[in-house]
Amino acid sequence: MEEGVERISSNDLSKQMKVTASQIRQDLNNFGGFGQQGYGYNVKYLYTEIGKILGLDIDHKMIIIGAGNLGQALANYAAFEKRGFILEGLFDVNPRLAGVTIRGVEIRMMDELKEFVQKNDIEIAALTIPKAKAIEVADLLVENGVKAIWNFAHTDLDLQEDVIVENVHLSESLMQLSYNITRYREEHK
Amino acid sequence: MEEGVERISSNDLSKQMKVTASQIRQDLNNFGGFGQQGYGYNVKYLYTEIGKILGLDIDHKMIIIGAGNLGQALANYAAFEKRGFILEGLFDVNPRLAGVTIRGVEIRMMDELKEFVQKNDIEIAALTIPKAKAIEVADLLVENGVKAIWNFAHTDLDLQEDVIVENVHLSESLMQLSYNITRYREEHK
Repeated sequence: MEEGVERISSNDLSKQMKVTASQIRQDLNNFGGFGQQGYGYNVKYLYTEIGKILGLDIDHKMIIIGAGNLGQALANYAAFEKRGFILEGLFDVNPRLAGVTIRGVEIRMMDELKEFVQKNDIEIAALTIPKAKAIEVADLLVENGVKAIWNFAHTDLDLQEDVIVENVHLSESLMQLSYNITRYREEHK
Repeated sequence: MEEGVERISSNDLSKQMKVTASQIRQDLNNFGGFGQQGYGYNVKYLYTEIGKILGLDIDHKMIIIGAGNLGQALANYAAFEKRGFILEGLFDVNPRLAGVTIRGVEIRMMDELKEFVQKNDIEIAALTIPKAKAIEVADLLVENGVKAIWNFAHTDLDLQEDVIVENVHLSESLMQLSYNITRYREEHK
């Protein structure tokens, strides 16, 4: 779409995505199929429809718990907002951060969290806090209406079934990297 | 191991891991199997052997390119070092960061990168820099001997086949979360 392409075949998509054309057709067919035999896909339509599947056509109110380096990195990432993830607040325990703003969003203290979540109808909370506090804070968030946790804390959360949890455990990703280095070496020694 | 458990059955592991006991036995058998019928697994032995499979039994020299919030968050995460990922240097383009240290590791300017990588035999580079510079920097790193890229930049890297790339694209993770919220709503409306 950025390159002004108006329609694209599954073959051309395949080259860009490094997935077979047949896989692309199959995957899209699972969601109803968005192409026509011999015509391919209308790029703008495909973009819009995939956006709807991903829930990017509606806004999601989000907060970040933990305004350390990682929390601030997330808060500074403007691209999330373009996708409809609207940062409503940041929370921390460090009194020196109270009232500081990041891209116009205020850092608040944890004792305001409960009321803030209830009043502002927060849907997603990113947890960038140490492991020791994560479970307790996640429980508080869910009790007050948060529907989804984006969990960066180095612990698994065991929440009620209707809460969506997406874990980003960076040490697992680093171990995956290390495993691949090791495997490559084994295979080429 | 932290709880002083010396041996464990695949059934007990299963309860803790939320994977079936048969899956655990199968997975471990792929690596040679570490248990005995009727005895279970020796916890310390299993821990050590899995560490070897993941390449955690040897040290990996690492640098971080980009000492913004995300780069600093990674640098501050001491647990990596316990697993053998040794941070040797941080690099940035911002002259105000030159000479600043994070947990004893100095932030250097990008013009020192090439020589530093060569002299210090760096194996892994974490890329926490904007998309626009990522490809160029990755190429430079690989030319100078880096074997693996931990890529946080919002772009895919197309490097020679013997370079290991592990992508952490946070916006994909957030879209996955959003997809699961949307799917849950569809199923429960």
